[in-house]
Amino acid sequence: MKADFLLNSKTALELYEKVRGLPIIDYHNHLSVSDIATDKRFTDILELWIAPDPYKHRAMRMRGVPEKYITGEASSEEKFEKWCETLPHLFGNPLYHWSLMELSTVFGIDELPTQKNAKEIYRCCNEYLSRESVTSRSLLERFNVELACPCVSLLDDLSCLEGIANVAPSLRGDDIVAPSEDFLKRLSSLTGISAYDDNGFSSAVKKRLDALEANGLVFTDHALDNGFCFDADRDDVKRLIFLAGEYAKRDLVMQLHIGAQRFTSTKLREAAGAAGGYAGIGNSVDVQSLTSLLDAVDMREHRLPKTVLFTLNPADNALISVLSGSYSRDGVSGLITQGPAWWWCDHKQGILDMLEHTAAFSLVSNFVGMTTDSRSFLSFVRHDYFRRILCDWLGKKIDDGEPVSDIEYAKSLVYDLCYGNAKRIINKKGGKEK
Amino acid sequence: MKADFLLNSKTALELYEKVRGLPIIDYHNHLSVSDIATDKRFTDILELWIAPDPYKHRAMRMRGVPEKYITGEASSEEKFEKWCETLPHLFGNPLYHWSLMELSTVFGIDELPTQKNAKEIYRCCNEYLSRESVTSRSLLERFNVELACPCVSLLDDLSCLEGIANVAPSLRGDDIVAPSEDFLKRLSSLTGISAYDDNGFSSAVKKRLDALEANGLVFTDHALDNGFCFDADRDDVKRLIFLAGEYAKRDLVMQLHIGAQRFTSTKLREAAGAAGGYAGIGNSVDVQSLTSLLDAVDMREHRLPKTVLFTLNPADNALISVLSGSYSRDGVSGLITQGPAWWWCDHKQGILDMLEHTAAFSLVSNFVGMTTDSRSFLSFVRHDYFRRILCDWLGKKIDDGEPVSDIEYAKSLVYDLCYGNAKRIINKKGGKEK
Amino acid sequence: MKADFLLNSKTALELYEKVRGLPIIDYHNHLSVSDIATDKRFTDILELWIAPDPYKHRAMRMRGVPEKYITGEASSEEKFEKWCETLPHLFGNPLYHWSLMELSTVFGIDELPTQKNAKEIYRCCNEYLSRESVTSRSLLERFNVELACPCVSLLDDLSCLEGIANVAPSLRGDDIVAPSEDFLKRLSSLTGISAYDDNGFSSAVKKRLDALEANGLVFTDHALDNGFCFDADRDDVKRLIFLAGEYAKRDLVMQLHIGAQRFTSTKLREAAGAAGGYAGIGNSVDVQSLTSLLDAVDMREHRLPKTVLFTLNPADNALISVLSGSYSRDGVSGLITQGPAWWWCDHKQGILDMLEHTAAFSLVSNFVGMTTDSRSFLSFVRHDYFRRILCDWLGKKIDDGEPVSDIEYAKSLVYDLCYGNAKRIINKKGGKEK
Repeated sequence: MKADFLLNSKTALELYEKVRGLPIIDYHNHLSVSDIATDKRFTDILELWIAPDPYKHRAMRMRGVPEKYITGEASSEEKFEKWCETLPHLFGNPLYHWSLMELSTVFGIDELPTQKNAKEIYRCCNEYLSRESVTSRSLLERFNVELACPCVSLLDDLSCLEGIANVAPSLRGDDIVAPSEDFLKRLSSLTGISAYDDNGFSSAVKKRLDALEANGLVFTDHALDNGFCFDADRDDVKRLIFLAGEYAKRDLVMQLHIGAQRFTSTKLREAAGAAGGYAGIGNSVDVQSLTSLLDAVDMREHRLPKTVLFTLNPADNALISVLSGSYSRDGVSGLITQGPAWWWCDHKQGILDMLEHTAAFSLVSNFVGMTTDSRSFLSFVRHDYFRRILCDWLGKKIDDGEPVSDIEYAKSLVYDLCYGNAKRIINKKGGKEK
Repeated sequence: MKADFLLNSKTALELYEKVRGLPIIDYHNHLSVSDIATDKRFTDILELWIAPDPYKHRAMRMRGVPEKYITGEASSEEKFEKWCETLPHLFGNPLYHWSLMELSTVFGIDELPTQKNAKEIYRCCNEYLSRESVTSRSLLERFNVELACPCVSLLDDLSCLEGIANVAPSLRGDDIVAPSEDFLKRLSSLTGISAYDDNGFSSAVKKRLDALEANGLVFTDHALDNGFCFDADRDDVKRLIFLAGEYAKRDLVMQLHIGAQRFTSTKLREAAGAAGGYAGIGNSVDVQSLTSLLDAVDMREHRLPKTVLFTLNPADNALISVLSGSYSRDGVSGLITQGPAWWWCDHKQGILDMLEHTAAFSLVSNFVGMTTDSRSFLSFVRHDYFRRILCDWLGKKIDDGEPVSDIEYAKSLVYDLCYGNAKRIINKKGGKEK
Repeated sequence: MKADFLLNSKTALELYEKVRGLPIIDYHNHLSVSDIATDKRFTDILELWIAPDPYKHRAMRMRGVPEKYITGEASSEEKFEKWCETLPHLFGNPLYHWSLMELSTVFGIDELPTQKNAKEIYRCCNEYLSRESVTSRSLLERFNVELACPCVSLLDDLSCLEGIANVAPSLRGDDIVAPSEDFLKRLSSLTGISAYDDNGFSSAVKKRLDALEANGLVFTDHALDNGFCFDADRDDVKRLIFLAGEYAKRDLVMQLHIGAQRFTSTKLREAAGAAGGYAGIGNSVDVQSLTSLLDAVDMREHRLPKTVLFTLNPADNALISVLSGSYSRDGVSGLITQGPAWWWCDHKQGILDMLEHTAAFSLVSNFVGMTTDSRSFLSFVRHDYFRRILCDWLGKKIDDGEPVSDIEYAKSLVYDLCYGNAKRIINKKGGKEK
């Protein structure tokens, strides 16, 4: 990979110098907590690079690769070859860039994988993995990860993360809002509080939040899937409002992931599970529902937590960005902000779109920073990807005559957007250092 | 501010020469009619620059500035300082550009306000305001405003505007369509016609329209807020159709402002009033409703008035632009056109988006011209902002090899878009000159 | 027209060399089958250039040209003059480019038509048409059309197309899904099978599909107009699912044209007919409905046909593109893909948007190729338009440092997108050659 990849001006390069070496704060991802706890060693490139990444599976399906070579019974090498065969056809898709960056950064391989060199690359990578000890935590070190926050459930036992300085939980709250019978049973048993009535439920949830906070919890998230409709009388909505109030009291950040259409192909759901890479993009979120939800939290508890809105539908970028001006709290900069380009939107054009909309309809200086949302330990390259795109974007603006006071301000801006703003949130809360 | 601000090519500069000195026609804004009538003098920079501009309030809230310093009891100087403190963080937001243009144009200050120089700038501006007589009408002169059209109600007494050549009313019609008891009472009393039944209502409204026309009325507007749904049986819809027919008969222009989500934060509504800068962007307008409304007007009265469609949701730019080809009237160019980038969309990217969509999905040559829609007398700088962006856009197209017959056609095009088309509408009607 | 029109870099020019001479596959259009069958000769430029193109009618209406000169009783020359008068005002609209290309390619006229030269151009063109024998089929030759697929009904007699090597039918299926009494009667009579009950209907439809396949059928299409809502119990939805299953079994391609708002102005519908150029863009398609439809086909017949999704609302580009990853079939590359920028979106910006979204949210390498969807024999210039825009887009990406293995890959990509991918589909099916 060329040093100036995606950096098309002197100004962009100068800005990038300011951020290229910064540590990574990845405040929301789906890394395996148990792989981190056990410091799992990777000896097979398929298992490290392809198997945990539904994004790659999806691309292979789009090229007609038989399911046998994706999630089926084919051998590791066969599956790897199918992926290499697919890669040259991904031009323009972010997987193309990411894959090249992943191979280059970790394995020093700067060739484009193809059908031809697939066996050779497979051999090289696995040789490397047998020679070097590549483990989950060594990868965190290699990518200079200051803090990674994998998703956990409220009920997870996090004692396994104790002593791991650069990992803290991120709370996935959907099963709290719509608890199953089993969830309530486990919650009750874990806390010693009967969670079957409203009071007990609240007390038990608070007790578990206390426990997660002791493990460094700062970020939480909830999904508002396609079709979300606010109804103040529904139990799940009431629970979400209660939780948001708790987050506010505790200075936790609430992420709302808006607009996934998770049910598409029944066959793929059966073959690849609930997160198998076949989700669609939902319609525009009902803005009346979203504003009612935020207002209900604001009125009931008389404050909102710091809230980061993600949209899977890029046509909603303006609608989402502008809500940052619709709620406020004295002393809190960026009470509501749009999060980084999410999931299928996390590519060069999607990142530029998000930056452009956040800047024009809101304040880009409040942007909370990049996060991967990924299941793969190699996805941290996406922070570098983001940094390059950001610096190129800002560099171009400056070169086109946008009046910035001086280059130092621009440098401090990219610093904040790549690292400073996220760091500030964690410091404020006390975060992992507590 | 540099002379070539936003003008990035020789062609752009050449086009800009054609329009930079043109008078301003600002056919829809929210300037205070009474301030104009009394030729109010401004002696405090806060009152001139910040207090009447909810856009700036919103930006301060996004930075966490306590409400005390925005709409609260803090002193003028304290509030001014908070704004200056906020400004450097607005990079990318149009307020950043506008503020620099406003300070530069009126006060000759070319520094970026910051926390550091806030007191000094406050002092300079207020000194200037005490030395020079800066009044509402002197500002109209300074900005070379040929015609400004502040919003009025059907019931407003406009005798105060008589003799003021460059101000004419723009009719805000929402309270006609959904009249309150008080509105009907005042309408009846003002016209001497009982407006409580349909016939009386129509006669009284017509009488008031006559009166406004005598004051130079050309432009009217109605809001179709988020959730607008056409139902031919509803009284408000019937009244809107009646009014549109009247506008058509009288050669008045009907503006439809589509898609505001005016209710977001209850707390901000209580603190800052109905137009406090916290509105959101609504979902895509129901196109079936919009086309039914336009068709109903077209069928009932057998003609539509010239109609300008504004959308607050930029994802609707194509949908809105394309409607310009869905209705027609012999001899009327641009019977339906998209208006300039509205409200939260009124920034560089939003203007480019609007131009690009209008050009590709409709006819940019029919564009009716920029208007500020602002409450501040300093906002006229936005016409210069628009002109620069337009010339840069067109210049780039020409330089990229778009086949224009010659540069003279391009010059006539920017002339029309900055001034000529709006002038033509006013001349046709007779406008203020009548 | 300049040779490098729209090609702004050396790389773009190099890529264009690869595709400029390629034959055209136009797999979906509205050319008149009877004009093709009779090899109609054109002697009047109006009849060739303007009368069959509602797109041009719409532009004239937007400029206020009286209906008399569009669809009314004015003379051919008068109508022609009105169009020439209109043209200079279309700057930025694709009609401007297309018209110049059409005149240049067929008549060698490189002047911009205006009011001034209208009579002269009219004379030149008609002289040319009287001198040269310009017929429907000679135009197919001149544009190097390898295969054109005009829309036909299931009931059309296609014997007239026998022996015409470069024309095959494209099935318009809307009247099958919602059959009229007359349709059922004709279907029964044509097949000798009573089509009034479900079994008979299926058998009769299959028999007609057999007949169309014998005439080279590969492509089919259905409209999902604005407001489309999936309901598995509705008869039209059941019939569509049945048809899609048939298409899959027969390796036919199913095109879904999504989101037209066909009813706008009642007056224009009366004046200009159902396809008179006044249609609007519908709201975002209900994604839950669309995924349910695709899933129902996939589950009922256990496979989907190759499906091309067109959206008239460009705000849906991401939503539509991403569905290509939501369904799959072993061995089929691009089972679901987004089609080329459709109808009002078919302009430079719309094509770039579609390419960018398909690349980033899906795989541009699966793109099935350009088609005109036009009623005019001159519209084939749009393939050249598409090729130029594609090459400029890709050239710019490469010049901006996108890592392509080498220029040869980029050349093979543009080849596939302009010709290779469509050719492969036809070859697989056996297509016309059968």
